[in-house]
Amino acid sequence: MSGELFSEERSAEVVAASFAGTPNPRLTQVMTSLVQHLHAFVKDVELTEEEWGVAIDFLTRTGQMSNEVRQEFILLSDVLGVSMLVETINHRTGGQSTESTVLGPFHMVESPPRALGDDIALDGKGDRCLVSGQVTGPDGEPLAGASVDVWQANEDGFYDVQQPGVQPESNLRGLFTTDDEGRFWFRSIVPKYYPIPDDGPVGELLAATARHPNRPAHLHFIVTAPGYRPVTTHVFVEDSPYLDSDAVFGVKDSLVRAVPEVDDPARAAEVGLPNPFRTLTFDLTLLRGGQTAS
Amino acid sequence: MSGELFSEERSAEVVAASFAGTPNPRLTQVMTSLVQHLHAFVKDVELTEEEWGVAIDFLTRTGQMSNEVRQEFILLSDVLGVSMLVETINHRTGGQSTESTVLGPFHMVESPPRALGDDIALDGKGDRCLVSGQVTGPDGEPLAGASVDVWQANEDGFYDVQQPGVQPESNLRGLFTTDDEGRFWFRSIVPKYYPIPDDGPVGELLAATARHPNRPAHLHFIVTAPGYRPVTTHVFVEDSPYLDSDAVFGVKDSLVRAVPEVDDPARAAEVGLPNPFRTLTFDLTLLRGGQTAS
Repeated sequence: MSGELFSEERSAEVVAASFAGTPNPRLTQVMTSLVQHLHAFVKDVELTEEEWGVAIDFLTRTGQMSNEVRQEFILLSDVLGVSMLVETINHRTGGQSTESTVLGPFHMVESPPRALGDDIALDGKGDRCLVSGQVTGPDGEPLAGASVDVWQANEDGFYDVQQPGVQPESNLRGLFTTDDEGRFWFRSIVPKYYPIPDDGPVGELLAATARHPNRPAHLHFIVTAPGYRPVTTHVFVEDSPYLDSDAVFGVKDSLVRAVPEVDDPARAAEVGLPNPFRTLTFDLTLLRGGQTAS
Repeated sequence: MSGELFSEERSAEVVAASFAGTPNPRLTQVMTSLVQHLHAFVKDVELTEEEWGVAIDFLTRTGQMSNEVRQEFILLSDVLGVSMLVETINHRTGGQSTESTVLGPFHMVESPPRALGDDIALDGKGDRCLVSGQVTGPDGEPLAGASVDVWQANEDGFYDVQQPGVQPESNLRGLFTTDDEGRFWFRSIVPKYYPIPDDGPVGELLAATARHPNRPAHLHFIVTAPGYRPVTTHVFVEDSPYLDSDAVFGVKDSLVRAVPEVDDPARAAEVGLPNPFRTLTFDLTLLRGGQTAS
């Protein structure tokens, strides 16, 4: 690095030039663009020194709030829509496959392998629900042996990893394998809406901007099958509050499903749930490996 | 917040709309601009999920590296030229007053009041130097009773606050008051170039981008006078390495000075330095309070 001295007018060019010697051309590209957009932001709002100080303090505390089970920078990325943007850019579907949405910060552990039909609701709370669906390829071919990794928050709005010692281990979490017709089914509870953790810097930001911290009711999925492109997504509950104001911008119309009640004692006995029970059906379509959205 | 669902095309608009209810209009403006520029950056480089993960980890560790005597986010702001840009935007001089530069992370303590002529080099290391100058207003009027706060790194490249127990307390730091002619003078050492702390995430960034961590030799000043606008700046040593590649982009041509040697035993005895000694002269001009650069 060697060259032109800093000036307000040419600040981004001067700083970007300092990255000219970067061995990795992709890193040069990313840092150059970052500097250009960051400087444009500072100039656009004419950021004051006091505001800069607030930002430094906010970012510092965001890092310091993070630990093994709390990732405050992912939350910040989430509430600024950056996580959803990165997810969307990297998983364009072209309408040919199930749309993706954010992974979220709570897929921190391996989900336990379970048999089709198993009950993942280990804490005995919530409205009982049969979740089922079929995994197919782009031409409707059933994907037998696909992995279906699911996890959801409990009736109180917390994931198992947020409440070690309170919830049973692996509560509301499971790794299923589809049958010969690509089908999966398991017993769980109807998901409920819940707030993202709002006792840290991100919560302060939401409060200062009069935004609520809630996510509409959803069940997470990661579906993988050999030779096909994985999908990370949610299914959302149709009548949930906050469907039009998800704190992390994760909702897509194509991912919303009704969760109707079934009143049929024989069917209830067959699936091992009390009558009546709710049903959530979510079919997923995967692109082939190497297939690009068109 | 309520409205349009997220899409790649309209991501920034959708997220910006979530800030529409912010009570403080300035915060709405800042967050809206931030979201627009941040999303533009992600789209510009089509950030991958892996790169996003690296960024989350980098920012988290940057927060966690910070403590009472180490502010890694300020360092990050510094090496991206953001600190210098904020400083420059908020202290436009129009060529009428001494130019400002970054405060830096090491003005963490009150400088001890000292008498004109005092020696601030308490550790006995380095090339002895007489530092002097005059503080004036925009019409050349001398500013008697102005405060001149100075601090610099020692011969080994560390500030006193970085080496508690190693350097004497308040080593190379002092708060002086100008005399009736607005003049100040004190004994110190010729500043040396030094690396910013590079054992953290910012050091990793510099290494990955083949940038050196060094700052050219400089002495920090904050000069204040009642009725005048304060100036935060440095004076740089003319023959220092890294003058054209300051790791934090702080150098301005108008702030560079020669530090000539004086070989005059009588003068040396008068100022209390061994003969020969070096001299650094730095006069400062302050704008009047409320005066805007034109």
